[in-house]
Amino acid sequence: MADIKFRVKANSLNPTKTLVKARGFELIVDEPQDLGGTNEGANPVEFILAGYAGCLNVMAHVCAQELGFELKGVKIDLVGNLNPARLFGKSFEERAGYKEIKATIKPDCEADEETIKKWLASIIDRCPVGDNLKNATDVAVFYKK
Amino acid sequence: MADIKFRVKANSLNPTKTLVKARGFELIVDEPQDLGGTNEGANPVEFILAGYAGCLNVMAHVCAQELGFELKGVKIDLVGNLNPARLFGKSFEERAGYKEIKATIKPDCEADEETIKKWLASIIDRCPVGDNLKNATDVAVFYKK
Repeated sequence: MADIKFRVKANSLNPTKTLVKARGFELIVDEPQDLGGTNEGANPVEFILAGYAGCLNVMAHVCAQELGFELKGVKIDLVGNLNPARLFGKSFEERAGYKEIKATIKPDCEADEETIKKWLASIIDRCPVGDNLKNATDVAVFYKK
Repeated sequence: MADIKFRVKANSLNPTKTLVKARGFELIVDEPQDLGGTNEGANPVEFILAGYAGCLNVMAHVCAQELGFELKGVKIDLVGNLNPARLFGKSFEERAGYKEIKATIKPDCEADEETIKKWLASIIDRCPVGDNLKNATDVAVFYKK
């Protein structure tokens, strides 16, 4: 299969609020007031969890279909913790981003335990967002005046 | 500073469409029709770029303030490419997620070249989402019946 390119274009509406355009969709990213923001949207690291939830849903259904069981739906809880000290320049001892992320998937289905284990292993192996979180990726950041 | 915990709860509305709740915010993640979706929202990997754009905006302003120059705004373009073969189970030769991500930041400011270079280095070092993309993170995925 050929590579697919994804692209977004963003503008700052204020120091914490960002308007992001992805194809025809507009998304507002902001920070809560206790992180200095105007709280008009979910924040950047919540967007990461949201994207991961969406990706897990897609993979849950792709993998259920391959394993031949009916998946009526899934509920997904995601939690991650990070220390904001590096972001705010208070300390450089810890990493800036999530230290760990925990995902819990609750499938609505009749599949047996063994099938569910195979299903979960396949989701974990093949989820694009999970891959980008678990593993290092080349990221290049440039500026243009 | 103390760690901060971020959490989202998600429900599948159909095999590609996910409703994600993050604090008071509701987000719809979906897939475009050419990836088998119902195209009612940006897709999971576009959410990752959106979160990264939002995070770069916050960091751009935090770091400009520290360096003492006025940042009137930023435009941010993000592009990433991935191969969907693993997701669809067609091939396991390549990783599932983005192979590389390129970010271009256009600051609206009067700062000189040397200051801008310091500014960019600080953004790159301290952006939480950038950290989670560039570096490996512990991700644990469980199921619950």
